[in-house]
Amino acid sequence: MKFSINRDVLFTNLNNINKALSTKAPMPVLTGIKIDVKKNYITLTASNSEISIQAKIDDPRNLFIEEVGTIVIPGKYFIEIVRKVEAKTIDIHTFENNMVKILADRSNFTLNLLEKENYPLISFDESNLKISLDALNLKQIIRKTTFATSLSESRMILMGVSFSIDKHKLEAIATDSFRLAKKYIVFDHENPSINVVIPSKSLDELIKILDDNDEIVDIHFGKSKVLFKYKNLLFQTRLIDGVYPNTNSLIPQDFLVSIKFNKNELISSIERAALFTSLEVANIIKLNLKNDKIVEISSVSNEIGAVLEEIYPLECSNNIPFQIAFSAKYFLDAVKAFDSNEVTIHFTGEIKPFIITGEFDANLVQLILPVRVS
Amino acid sequence: MKFSINRDVLFTNLNNINKALSTKAPMPVLTGIKIDVKKNYITLTASNSEISIQAKIDDPRNLFIEEVGTIVIPGKYFIEIVRKVEAKTIDIHTFENNMVKILADRSNFTLNLLEKENYPLISFDESNLKISLDALNLKQIIRKTTFATSLSESRMILMGVSFSIDKHKLEAIATDSFRLAKKYIVFDHENPSINVVIPSKSLDELIKILDDNDEIVDIHFGKSKVLFKYKNLLFQTRLIDGVYPNTNSLIPQDFLVSIKFNKNELISSIERAALFTSLEVANIIKLNLKNDKIVEISSVSNEIGAVLEEIYPLECSNNIPFQIAFSAKYFLDAVKAFDSNEVTIHFTGEIKPFIITGEFDANLVQLILPVRVS
Repeated sequence: MKFSINRDVLFTNLNNINKALSTKAPMPVLTGIKIDVKKNYITLTASNSEISIQAKIDDPRNLFIEEVGTIVIPGKYFIEIVRKVEAKTIDIHTFENNMVKILADRSNFTLNLLEKENYPLISFDESNLKISLDALNLKQIIRKTTFATSLSESRMILMGVSFSIDKHKLEAIATDSFRLAKKYIVFDHENPSINVVIPSKSLDELIKILDDNDEIVDIHFGKSKVLFKYKNLLFQTRLIDGVYPNTNSLIPQDFLVSIKFNKNELISSIERAALFTSLEVANIIKLNLKNDKIVEISSVSNEIGAVLEEIYPLECSNNIPFQIAFSAKYFLDAVKAFDSNEVTIHFTGEIKPFIITGEFDANLVQLILPVRVS
Repeated sequence: MKFSINRDVLFTNLNNINKALSTKAPMPVLTGIKIDVKKNYITLTASNSEISIQAKIDDPRNLFIEEVGTIVIPGKYFIEIVRKVEAKTIDIHTFENNMVKILADRSNFTLNLLEKENYPLISFDESNLKISLDALNLKQIIRKTTFATSLSESRMILMGVSFSIDKHKLEAIATDSFRLAKKYIVFDHENPSINVVIPSKSLDELIKILDDNDEIVDIHFGKSKVLFKYKNLLFQTRLIDGVYPNTNSLIPQDFLVSIKFNKNELISSIERAALFTSLEVANIIKLNLKNDKIVEISSVSNEIGAVLEEIYPLECSNNIPFQIAFSAKYFLDAVKAFDSNEVTIHFTGEIKPFIITGEFDANLVQLILPVRVS
């Protein structure tokens, strides 16, 4: 195996597949990157038990192939070498059967290879169950939902984001049973019916290789895995097995009072009000709508002290005095998911779930369960 | 106690004294900041067992004092409050004997105070044994020496930097017995004779409150502590007790061969050569001067692989073939301490200490002990 490659192109692609590289080694060969050198292109593959990523490089301006072959190269060290060399071109060739030489300007690296026979067979499978979405929209869906998934392994299904596709609509839902994030998008063409749950962690890795543009991502749904095709990259993750709970009835439709806030003002107030509530335990703050339509946000810690914030809402649908308590962290996560400058909180009752909406986030609802305080 | 203060002025000064704030609590009251409100000024004091810092604020444009008094306020929370409020002015007053109210725009914080009677008496003592130095020069001395101090408590004296002042010269020396950093400066006036050892950690904190300018720092040397007076700040640290070893004879004067390098090229080569040597263990690399005056830098790891770097020196005093091995980390620490674009390594023998100098760092010598390799 022997080829020369543009250093920057190689480094960019190594960074992309790096997200799937195993750092721990339940299977030591997975700490390696598989390089397949074909006649006219090379592929770089990395995989852990959850996700696999493959990058294909075929631009003859950046690549010169002299001899085909396959190696599995220690991932961490290979990436560090490419990061540290300043050469324009890097030459890579195998020698003595299980070693590789990496030459770059006046640097000469020798790396012991991993056993390529031990590398698992990874098939990146396309499917007839397929939808297409632009990168920006997919990023938005992920950003606005994954934070609400559960971290607890006691209910695995809640550690993923539910994607339900039915004809013209894709609905993404995440919940840890204390809060819920729901984002949908509407297509102008018809799609197949699909119901899958994608691990939240995989989506958080996927987002890192997507740019903020309208380049198309093709999503192929398999029985136990889903494949994202984007530019020269294949990103595949396993799915979470099981039936996602029906959450439709959770989202209230009739509201007691709706209050509109400037988003950044609200975030600052909540952050100050939560200063004394430790982030590790449930950091509960109170929201109090007073007769004069001024909103008070407050918290008390017997040990440390108390905070009382006043905030003037932009609008208030009703002036019944109203009081509710909830987790500042959940609330901040939810409000920060909005792009709108103004957000509206819709309350149903003092101990009933409430929802947050934003006028420029038409297809996004964040729901939070309040807590009962004395 | 009651006063109003400009938020930005308060925040800047809190950040400065923050470096001395105790985070752990062998003495819980030291997690607090002592605020002394006098008729025309306030002081903020923080202290841990090693260092104490006091900031004085007296500019009437930024401060309005209504009632004098002293409090000890929980440091971490007070700083977080001031960081998070956006108000121009903050009002602070005590109430109910052991509480303080902090008002900023529409935010209202209540904090439980710490017992001021428990706060230790900290005297910031001036001394007749005094020198003056500009901030930039003092920063340079610290930056170019502290990294070479020992981290091991087995020889406490080596955990500090030795400052020897004799008439027109100040000499700062740090060594962990494997390497040594020596920087001196020359005064045009006469100073008292002083020999002290200042904890390396304290100097690394001091550096953070010094700006890159020529504002004067007055240094007052006491029996067991040293006080730095800089702008509106007092920074005091304990000294390390004991006699610093005499290191004069360690620095070689006659050299077998001297090799001049471009500094950045040398750093890049060494960093690449050290890629496979773990930073946790002694990361040994070899330097080999060949007949053709090309320098090879190399390392081998049986497990991972090998690196061979070639570098063309700018100058070489002699062309005897020569080989030496040393810690890449120590070497990089030392070379990075130079401001010069070109550095010269002066070798005395293959298993003898060598030194590094730079033409624009006239008063700086870095010494490194090689290691014997087979």
